[in-house]
Amino acid sequence: PAAMSASVILPDLATQVVVPVAAAVGIAFAVLQWFLVSQVKVTGDGGSAGKGGASESLIEEEEGLNDHNVVLKCAEIQTAISEGATSFLYTEYKYAGGFMTVFAVLIFVFLGSIEGFSTKSQPCHYSVGKTCKPALANAAFSTIAFVLGAVTSLVSGFLGMKIATYANARTTLEARKGVGKAFIVAFRSGAVMGFLLAASGLFVLYIIINVFGIYYGDDWEGLFEAITGYGLGGSSMALFGRVGGGIYTKAADVGADLVGKVERNIPEDDPRNPAVIADNVGDNVGDIAGMGSDLFGSYAESSCAALVVASISSFGINHEFTPMMYPLLISSVGIIACLITTLFATDFFEVKAVDQIEPALKKQLIISTAVMTVGIALVSWLGLPYTFTIFNFGAQKTVHSWQLFLCVAVGLWAGLVIGFITEYYTSNAYSPVQDVADSCRTGAATNVIFGLALGYKSVIIPIFAIAFSIFLSFSLAAMYGVAVAALGMLSTIATGLAIDAYGPISDNAGGIAEMAGMSHRIRERTDALDAAGNTTAAIGKGFAIGSAALVSLALFGAFVSRAGITTVDVLTPNVFIGLLVGAMLPYWFSAMTMKSVGSAALKMVEEVRRQFNTIPGLMEGTAKPDYATCVKISTDASIKEMIPPGALVMLTPLIVGTFFGVETLSGVLAGALVSGVQIAISASNTGGAWDNAKKYIEAGVSDHAKSLGPKGSDCHKAAVIGDTIGDPLKDTSGPSLNILIKLMAVESLVFAPFFATYGGLLFKYI
Amino acid sequence: PAAMSASVILPDLATQVVVPVAAAVGIAFAVLQWFLVSQVKVTGDGGSAGKGGASESLIEEEEGLNDHNVVLKCAEIQTAISEGATSFLYTEYKYAGGFMTVFAVLIFVFLGSIEGFSTKSQPCHYSVGKTCKPALANAAFSTIAFVLGAVTSLVSGFLGMKIATYANARTTLEARKGVGKAFIVAFRSGAVMGFLLAASGLFVLYIIINVFGIYYGDDWEGLFEAITGYGLGGSSMALFGRVGGGIYTKAADVGADLVGKVERNIPEDDPRNPAVIADNVGDNVGDIAGMGSDLFGSYAESSCAALVVASISSFGINHEFTPMMYPLLISSVGIIACLITTLFATDFFEVKAVDQIEPALKKQLIISTAVMTVGIALVSWLGLPYTFTIFNFGAQKTVHSWQLFLCVAVGLWAGLVIGFITEYYTSNAYSPVQDVADSCRTGAATNVIFGLALGYKSVIIPIFAIAFSIFLSFSLAAMYGVAVAALGMLSTIATGLAIDAYGPISDNAGGIAEMAGMSHRIRERTDALDAAGNTTAAIGKGFAIGSAALVSLALFGAFVSRAGITTVDVLTPNVFIGLLVGAMLPYWFSAMTMKSVGSAALKMVEEVRRQFNTIPGLMEGTAKPDYATCVKISTDASIKEMIPPGALVMLTPLIVGTFFGVETLSGVLAGALVSGVQIAISASNTGGAWDNAKKYIEAGVSDHAKSLGPKGSDCHKAAVIGDTIGDPLKDTSGPSLNILIKLMAVESLVFAPFFATYGGLLFKYI
Repeated sequence: PAAMSASVILPDLATQVVVPVAAAVGIAFAVLQWFLVSQVKVTGDGGSAGKGGASESLIEEEEGLNDHNVVLKCAEIQTAISEGATSFLYTEYKYAGGFMTVFAVLIFVFLGSIEGFSTKSQPCHYSVGKTCKPALANAAFSTIAFVLGAVTSLVSGFLGMKIATYANARTTLEARKGVGKAFIVAFRSGAVMGFLLAASGLFVLYIIINVFGIYYGDDWEGLFEAITGYGLGGSSMALFGRVGGGIYTKAADVGADLVGKVERNIPEDDPRNPAVIADNVGDNVGDIAGMGSDLFGSYAESSCAALVVASISSFGINHEFTPMMYPLLISSVGIIACLITTLFATDFFEVKAVDQIEPALKKQLIISTAVMTVGIALVSWLGLPYTFTIFNFGAQKTVHSWQLFLCVAVGLWAGLVIGFITEYYTSNAYSPVQDVADSCRTGAATNVIFGLALGYKSVIIPIFAIAFSIFLSFSLAAMYGVAVAALGMLSTIATGLAIDAYGPISDNAGGIAEMAGMSHRIRERTDALDAAGNTTAAIGKGFAIGSAALVSLALFGAFVSRAGITTVDVLTPNVFIGLLVGAMLPYWFSAMTMKSVGSAALKMVEEVRRQFNTIPGLMEGTAKPDYATCVKISTDASIKEMIPPGALVMLTPLIVGTFFGVETLSGVLAGALVSGVQIAISASNTGGAWDNAKKYIEAGVSDHAKSLGPKGSDCHKAAVIGDTIGDPLKDTSGPSLNILIKLMAVESLVFAPFFATYGGLLFKYI
Repeated sequence: PAAMSASVILPDLATQVVVPVAAAVGIAFAVLQWFLVSQVKVTGDGGSAGKGGASESLIEEEEGLNDHNVVLKCAEIQTAISEGATSFLYTEYKYAGGFMTVFAVLIFVFLGSIEGFSTKSQPCHYSVGKTCKPALANAAFSTIAFVLGAVTSLVSGFLGMKIATYANARTTLEARKGVGKAFIVAFRSGAVMGFLLAASGLFVLYIIINVFGIYYGDDWEGLFEAITGYGLGGSSMALFGRVGGGIYTKAADVGADLVGKVERNIPEDDPRNPAVIADNVGDNVGDIAGMGSDLFGSYAESSCAALVVASISSFGINHEFTPMMYPLLISSVGIIACLITTLFATDFFEVKAVDQIEPALKKQLIISTAVMTVGIALVSWLGLPYTFTIFNFGAQKTVHSWQLFLCVAVGLWAGLVIGFITEYYTSNAYSPVQDVADSCRTGAATNVIFGLALGYKSVIIPIFAIAFSIFLSFSLAAMYGVAVAALGMLSTIATGLAIDAYGPISDNAGGIAEMAGMSHRIRERTDALDAAGNTTAAIGKGFAIGSAALVSLALFGAFVSRAGITTVDVLTPNVFIGLLVGAMLPYWFSAMTMKSVGSAALKMVEEVRRQFNTIPGLMEGTAKPDYATCVKISTDASIKEMIPPGALVMLTPLIVGTFFGVETLSGVLAGALVSGVQIAISASNTGGAWDNAKKYIEAGVSDHAKSLGPKGSDCHKAAVIGDTIGDPLKDTSGPSLNILIKLMAVESLVFAPFFATYGGLLFKYI
């Protein structure tokens, strides 16, 4: 091993320093951004003008800048939103926590049972002739890792929500000073979340590797097998976050729109609408907390998938620490690259007008990708030996460091391609969305037909990009290559999350401006921020789906390796029916989530109608609606409805693996992956396109757009129907599908030792 | 061979008699039904009362039974529809014919090139040590079989259309005498098509096997390889029929509805609507001719898949003629079983009231399945040796005759399960459609959300049914088992097509009643026939999709065998990216077809609006609209738009096979299969459910339905939007996907010898 280690430039000690330092820098940077955001005061006595003062003179002054009533009103709304979101998350985490506890016990019992809960050491699975830790220890550490993953995911989501509800009113208040000021507050807040999440995910992973390592010693095989529990925990929590949050936000949104916009003809976010607080709470619990948990899950899983394959490759066999930590080094460099990138949005350049917002956000994607490419090259040069071997379904494949660089880079750049294609299909600056808007001339039906066709079409290039990444990374470095390609796509996660979280924060800011009765000009600014946010949200979903596809494949490969099968042959009945049924699961799951949103929205509609009909003076603005009941309806519905789809995803691998065996389970995973990716991409792009087609008509910037509008025209009504249909597609069922495919794969990996020992009961006894 | 043949009860000579006789009986029965339908006269001078007279007294007399003006008007409308349909089909066949000619040349050149166009005999591919006919002969006979398949498909579709346009006005006229009379005319006409198609498909196949056999002699391997061209020809033509016809019918339907029903508030099929003739023509070219070609294609392909596998199993190796003809014997018995079944609808029982229509049609499904089960047992007992071997990816698997019985029977009964589940999700007698109708209370958006969720959900049980059939038949008799399971599902094709064709005929009958200005009571009767037809159409599509899944898998298996690969391992990059891209193809294809319908409908809307705005007296009914222009718009649009999706399907296997090789192509086929089935089922059920939700509100039979109606209410308007969105889903993109998956598989099979020799250019030179 000494001779081999010499070929790596970066010493192990340096690696032990670089990773935690990068994580610490990320956290410090997040805290700094938070501090900068907190300079905007939303208490009445603090005044509202920024204190920095230096560049104040550049900013157009607005009426009411010192109107303390407006500030008070904003503070009040912010508190309502924040309290609603916090209370929902507590309830959600309580129920999900119950499920997770049961599942933790299951993990321990299933994995512990492999050697009959024996505390004796066992022969290693891969390292022939060596002795490894007992299965019981793996069961215990997997369970601990699972719990830590779940807690980290929970904290990530919760902190994201806290930051977003802290930033929304501040963005509104800054919008009085100009669009640039508001943009910076929203973006900085997004960055807080992005860096906090990326850094804490890395930090916790680093800690548990080192702490678990004390017990495991030389048994890296067992160590990294146990670590995969971290990914499972992260994704399980993310599932409940995405599904629960997704149902919450869309039930409120659809319910509020159907009565407010369609029946009562009052604007979006009008304070007279009883569901308006629930709607704004939803943005925070669904889009922010849900997305945060989701991407944290992807990040944790791709790291785990890479680590588990590395542990049985030459890195693990020879105990080379620095190359082993390659995935963590990539993420460390990613944090630094994103930090530099962020400065381009907040310090080096300034957004001065509405039309500079989208380019500024797009520049973030390009800069982070370019900087990161250099970072990957550096890490691959410093952190890897020139030649090494990677486990490839039973054989060892020889790989060079530059090939691994290509694997990571292809994932990174495929992410950028997916981002741009998503932007093309969902931004109203291009013809696809404009065509959809145009089809509203003949009513809602053609709008829906064109929107669905757009979503289907938008799948083509992302799939080719993913297929190319898979082909290259798979060919060069087997499943390790695919795992690091996924990490490559996720290496700029801090920036990705920043621009992603920016969207719902701006959306909330607009809502607060409307509710606080601020002027039309301010609402126009927040609307512009929001429109850009719709596109970035779609891009974020594109990333999430693309990385989920790569992560799932890597996890699938690790599962197959661990389960001890070397081929997954479509030409066997077991595998083929698995493939067919697996491809059906995303439909089953979507049917559940769509129906949940529909039913919850119907309840919301009834309540909102009831309030409008029974509370005198509500329409006139003299009486206040009962916001709390609407919040409660969304909460109850989403908690109740998140369990069945959650159970479907969590139980399928267990049932299939236990009764039908690992071959059928492999088929199910592959089927769910190849089918789920398509539905996820098309659902989120269709929804994004409808939303922006509606905004295109509302904004009326071009002659074409003006000919379709204004608000309230027949065309606009047709566009609103499309937007409403798109809501559950883009924010509930679509993004949840990422988690479906990832979670089933990581769960199969964690339970692989159990399935390999006891799986396939049905075939054994027939 | 002599000793082996002795174990088969049915002598070869008997087989040579049974098959053509069954085909002849089928054709004779079809002619008889046609004769019975023709007894209803639509010429003014012939009188309108039935001539049979015996049971006339039972029928309630209606006003205007002897009003010759009405008869003349019906005759006139019928002529217009028939002429429009004939002229469209001529145009469609002209363009498709051009494409097919080019493709025939491609087949000859590609397959001929394998041995460099040598006319010398070659060593057999499977029968080691034997000499087979030259590749050039296989190329020539494959091309001939391809052309014959295409022509048979064309004739099937054309005759179906002719019968339907012959029967529609006759059904209307009979509706004056009562719903029972009308039902019998519509059903008999459907039976004409069903029996003609099933019998002629069988007959042509029988003939070419015998005629090609004269040249091939003992070389059964080459003979049945060439025969697969028949399946390819049938399906290629079906593709153009389905896509072209689907775009035609839905462009006209959507266009007519959007202006007529939504903008002008005139009823469906109102003669003032300029697109009304095009709409009725569409039912005949899309639902009738397209469906006929589609199911003929499935039938031809499953027969070919079974035959090609059998030719390299013990049947083929030992030259056992009767067992070899097992697939044709199944179809022969199927014709007889369906003949008996038909008598239950037309002679043994009588439909006397509206609520007896659906049960009568459902009974058809059950009776045909029950009778056919006995038939399969008989054929398996008489036509098979007790023990034989089946080719299983390089090895020979021992199979018993009762196992083959199980394979066919499981396919047959799975078809019934799919039929009933489809009925449950699309008939407005059950809660799923009623829930969708109920969701119209809150507008079109919730209607669409619930409808999509319903379609997704309706996939679950059919997929389990298909998966179970595949598992059983695959386990028992490898790919031969899957092929005969498909044949089992299709063995009752004559009955299936009869109840399928019945729908559009009733739809047309209703249209003619409206246009001829017949009384409200008659329109109510034709509406009731039509509502039952919507459900049976969905059931027919369920069958078509289920059988397509089985057929494609069988063809895929045959392709893999012929291409000489023994495993299709998901754990190789080539196969995995194939799987991923294959799963994307149905989305690409659907994007094209949906957009085509959308664009064509927009053109139609403009033309219909133009006519309403510029022709004075049109709305008042004093001036006649210009039907011909609308017919031309539908024709031009569908001809132009059918080429790109057609090319996508036809060229993908060629490009992938030639450049990426057979492994990647295997992945593409498997991916397209498992993903396409789901979209096809969900699209056609969503569409069917929306259509019947609308009809549920219109009919207003229950208190619940009345609370949503009447026609023109907000709920009804929301339901109309859903119905319109569903049109392209259920009649264009959904059903075309069957053909996509089948056609790519059969094309790969036909070109397999070429790919095996020259395929994978890209990887060879990198």
